[in-house]
Amino acid sequence: MDQKAFQDYYPEQLSHCYGCGRLNEHGLQIKSYWDGEETCCVFTPLPHHMAIPGYVYGGLIASLIDCHSTGTAAAAMARAQQREIDSQPPLRFVTASLHVDYLRPTPLGVALEVRATILEIKGRKVVVSSTLAAQGEICARGEVVAVQLPEDFKLGE
Amino acid sequence: MDQKAFQDYYPEQLSHCYGCGRLNEHGLQIKSYWDGEETCCVFTPLPHHMAIPGYVYGGLIASLIDCHSTGTAAAAMARAQQREIDSQPPLRFVTASLHVDYLRPTPLGVALEVRATILEIKGRKVVVSSTLAAQGEICARGEVVAVQLPEDFKLGE
Repeated sequence: MDQKAFQDYYPEQLSHCYGCGRLNEHGLQIKSYWDGEETCCVFTPLPHHMAIPGYVYGGLIASLIDCHSTGTAAAAMARAQQREIDSQPPLRFVTASLHVDYLRPTPLGVALEVRATILEIKGRKVVVSSTLAAQGEICARGEVVAVQLPEDFKLGE
Repeated sequence: MDQKAFQDYYPEQLSHCYGCGRLNEHGLQIKSYWDGEETCCVFTPLPHHMAIPGYVYGGLIASLIDCHSTGTAAAAMARAQQREIDSQPPLRFVTASLHVDYLRPTPLGVALEVRATILEIKGRKVVVSSTLAAQGEICARGEVVAVQLPEDFKLGE
């Protein structure tokens, strides 16, 4: 894939997220891309990302859905505003709410594919719906309400 | 606290969860306890559990709420059935759905307290409501539908 990931456009000071920050060396460093009108992220959990033997930890699934959705929100807002994600003001979204339905146990040891679609863009809010699949079978569904970080938000240390 | 945590009652083969398994050396190893009719879990995120500088990663918050809620479900079912969590058949719950509302940014560097109450116990299902607070201020609210793992569930490797 020669496309640049959404997360690679985030400004340096907003690239430390455990789930998607390219500068968090302990984190998951997920990468999200457009695939037509949908967005896609592929991630292979590590053996210790386990819930019970053989199956993926639900908190990791929530994390993948969360960060892929906020990345999708940034990309969708950029598209809607006909500009790049890294143009000013920065398009970095945080999560207002996260919902995950776990439909079946998610097998550990294979690549997981998260696919998202935009349900709504309204003001600074983007609502994102997603599925998480393993070997073509949908194991979880997510819905995230993402809100654009205010430009004057005061970062901590 | 000289109480034994809910998670310390889980059978060995079900104690590898990234969020709460005492045998997952890479995991969070959260510990949950009764506090009257509520349950409580205190966890201090590590510096790399960051969303943006100064604030805790939402996926970690979801993970704490998730595992504390499934632990609470096991403890509540044990109480309802007037038996110990580690009596037979084992009381180990998995997540059917997870909802988190992020009310305000959660500061990084301080202990977080997750407190949960039981909304409903029906058959093998327990619905758990929770709050996550930092320095006495509620930063997130969660609701988890937890379902008891079937006794004949086939674990993977």
